[in-house]
Amino acid sequence: MNVSLPLVLLLPLVAQDAASPSAARPDPIEVIDRIVDESLARGRAHDLLGELCRTAPHRLSGSEGADLAVAWAHAKMRALGFENIRLEPCTVPRWERGEVEELVFTSPEELRGEALPILALGGSIATPEAGIEASVVVVSTPEELDALGSDGADDRIVLFNRPMDDTEVDTFRAYGGAVGQRSQGASWAARAGGVAALVRSMTTRRDDVPHTGAMRYTEGVRQVPTAAVSTNGADRIAALVAAGEDVRLRLRLTCRTLEPVESFNVVGELVGREKPAEIVVVGGHLDAWDVGEGAHDDGAGCVQALEAVRLMRVLGLRPRRTVRCVLFANEENGLAGGQEYHRAHRDEMEQHVLAIESDRGGFTPRGWKAGMTDSARRELEELVRLLARTGATRVEAGGGGADIGPMRASGVPLVGFVPDSQRYFDFHHAPTDVFGAVNRRELHLGAAAIAGLAWLVADREGALPRAAEATR
Amino acid sequence: MNVSLPLVLLLPLVAQDAASPSAARPDPIEVIDRIVDESLARGRAHDLLGELCRTAPHRLSGSEGADLAVAWAHAKMRALGFENIRLEPCTVPRWERGEVEELVFTSPEELRGEALPILALGGSIATPEAGIEASVVVVSTPEELDALGSDGADDRIVLFNRPMDDTEVDTFRAYGGAVGQRSQGASWAARAGGVAALVRSMTTRRDDVPHTGAMRYTEGVRQVPTAAVSTNGADRIAALVAAGEDVRLRLRLTCRTLEPVESFNVVGELVGREKPAEIVVVGGHLDAWDVGEGAHDDGAGCVQALEAVRLMRVLGLRPRRTVRCVLFANEENGLAGGQEYHRAHRDEMEQHVLAIESDRGGFTPRGWKAGMTDSARRELEELVRLLARTGATRVEAGGGGADIGPMRASGVPLVGFVPDSQRYFDFHHAPTDVFGAVNRRELHLGAAAIAGLAWLVADREGALPRAAEATR
Repeated sequence: MNVSLPLVLLLPLVAQDAASPSAARPDPIEVIDRIVDESLARGRAHDLLGELCRTAPHRLSGSEGADLAVAWAHAKMRALGFENIRLEPCTVPRWERGEVEELVFTSPEELRGEALPILALGGSIATPEAGIEASVVVVSTPEELDALGSDGADDRIVLFNRPMDDTEVDTFRAYGGAVGQRSQGASWAARAGGVAALVRSMTTRRDDVPHTGAMRYTEGVRQVPTAAVSTNGADRIAALVAAGEDVRLRLRLTCRTLEPVESFNVVGELVGREKPAEIVVVGGHLDAWDVGEGAHDDGAGCVQALEAVRLMRVLGLRPRRTVRCVLFANEENGLAGGQEYHRAHRDEMEQHVLAIESDRGGFTPRGWKAGMTDSARRELEELVRLLARTGATRVEAGGGGADIGPMRASGVPLVGFVPDSQRYFDFHHAPTDVFGAVNRRELHLGAAAIAGLAWLVADREGALPRAAEATR
Repeated sequence: MNVSLPLVLLLPLVAQDAASPSAARPDPIEVIDRIVDESLARGRAHDLLGELCRTAPHRLSGSEGADLAVAWAHAKMRALGFENIRLEPCTVPRWERGEVEELVFTSPEELRGEALPILALGGSIATPEAGIEASVVVVSTPEELDALGSDGADDRIVLFNRPMDDTEVDTFRAYGGAVGQRSQGASWAARAGGVAALVRSMTTRRDDVPHTGAMRYTEGVRQVPTAAVSTNGADRIAALVAAGEDVRLRLRLTCRTLEPVESFNVVGELVGREKPAEIVVVGGHLDAWDVGEGAHDDGAGCVQALEAVRLMRVLGLRPRRTVRCVLFANEENGLAGGQEYHRAHRDEMEQHVLAIESDRGGFTPRGWKAGMTDSARRELEELVRLLARTGATRVEAGGGGADIGPMRASGVPLVGFVPDSQRYFDFHHAPTDVFGAVNRRELHLGAAAIAGLAWLVADREGALPRAAEATR
């Protein structure tokens, strides 16, 4: 790949060995090469991910696992020699899956008693102890539900069975097109008279693994329990109904919402050598669903953020500006961490020159989503050409990530790391999202790309153009 | 991604529904979109791969599994409605692993009797029945072996422990830099007086899984047995030796080379509607090592070649020229299939307008290796911009693939499909190369890219520029 240096990069770029402040200006390509070499040959991201997944595999907000993850991250930043390490408090919701989640056929007769694997959706209420037994109606959209007429779903369990669109090469777009049924299906069902909502799992696979995720009850609408069924399970129910069977199911859930509790964003820095008050954030979210190990979502992003700072440290690259690693709380079911970070640091927002988030899995790098002005995006496009070796060269418009999203209102340029998306929804929010599903080289190339971009922006003479501030 | 139509594409491109020859010219972007949609939504490549891996998981040349694979491929082409289906005979070598492969410490005393996992290298002779017991010398290169002096390896087992270079982002380059010790290590060792050669497995992982592969004895040099040790195993031996231990091992192998036998290249076509004598080859190799299931190497390439033709058929895309699917025999240990294809079709070589091979695993598409003239490569670069949706847009100079390689001498433009290489050597030639390691969406995006390129070239008005013919 032919990388020619665009004009913007010919501005003086100075990186100095932390131990020898008088070192000469390095060639940025050379610095990126050192970062990539170090990450691939001696990177720690994969080992760190293994530690996190063993220490706190289940770390949903408010759980013991979440506390363990915070303690691990805090200790790890100390061990790795980060500066200005701190826990920044925020209040997070607390939902527990409970002991029972069960979906069993009660009709047709020949299937009576047979169970289908499910996972309660985060935020769901429980069923009565005996469960909810009802016949099933299957729809793909809320419009189909409306079309059934006023009593179409009365006293029934509604199965929302809209598949993710297989033909979307960007699986996140396919997810966006179908996830409404998970987040709002329970309230759609209740409005139509339903007694519970089942939702086809948000995955590109056809298998027996259910995928959980957040749901939210619409204000003023009766609350009914809701759970995810595997894609095979959903297709099976739908086929039976389509064949004219009177399909009846009994759903039992014992999940519950408890009082909110205190948690923390975990923060540590590599302080800038010239402009320490100016900040490049690199982050991921430390919370994860209570199934699997949150390896891709978002253990990978957390260890890449840690590794980005570690790589600069071990290579003696102390950039002009401060690089701040932020491991956010509560992305999965509330976003309290991202919102609180923005609130607590609002006086510092003008000094935030960039925020980078990695929350799309630890796969092979492709590029970036740029949530910034057009002129800033053009500068970013030039910068990331220097990252050609990592494969992260494509820039698309888009949000940067859920946790850094609140900073957009303050005009901070946001970047989301975009790895290849083909495999992400094999694992997302599922028991299959485990350490063994993350490839070391892919994870380390991503860490190098993130470290490289953070260094390029933190060490640049000028900051990227900002958007007009929408709110303070 | 912004795809503007380059001039070369504005030449008339005509695709007609096989059932309605009078259909109007389709927009090539629209055709590629149909191919990608079909492959992602209703593609068969993954199912076909599952069938192949179940039917003939072990299919080394000359084995019963290889015969089963040929029968499966032949029957499958018939079931899928290919035209001009045939088995083209070629003579292949036959090597068998045998029942025993064993590597055991005999010194130091505290490790006596402990075994390390190994795999004999394809082509190796057996040890005497009692095995070979000797002390170990560890080197990284043949030069290091030479530097030991004339008796440095006398009566010893030589361990070649050169790792693949982790910092090479293209893992095939890292493989190329280290694989000499596997293919020639036995003869290097014998020349230095050694009695056997052990070779560090060619993988980017550090684990306990040995990876096999072909070796070849240098003419006139004493033949000694040789096997691959896992990376962990090799590191362990090397650490003991470095610590000054007298490491002695006993190696037992019962592998053997038998008489060559007849096998077949399996060939089927979609006959061109205007220039049926002109041919675009799409291929992979049907043989595979006798461990794992040859899922990535090269079941993936075989089913992508089958799928490329199937996709055109089901979409009613019969291009001007013939698309010929060739599943080659004996890539792994002899290349008899590729050589025999070139020999048997030498009178047809001038009508071969392109040969495409997929033999780098079923991973997410990145681009192509172009073995052709510079002017042909420039045309290829323009064509593959139309494949942006598949991700296969990068064109690098290089060989097209081992099986199609012999056609280069006849001036045929060659293209190798290049998927992302980060994970390939986790599986290559190892028990881990199984169906479950291949992701459906990645495999199907690759099939779409290959089908798309084959269609673009087969349906184009003019052929790509050819190289001067080197031999006939």
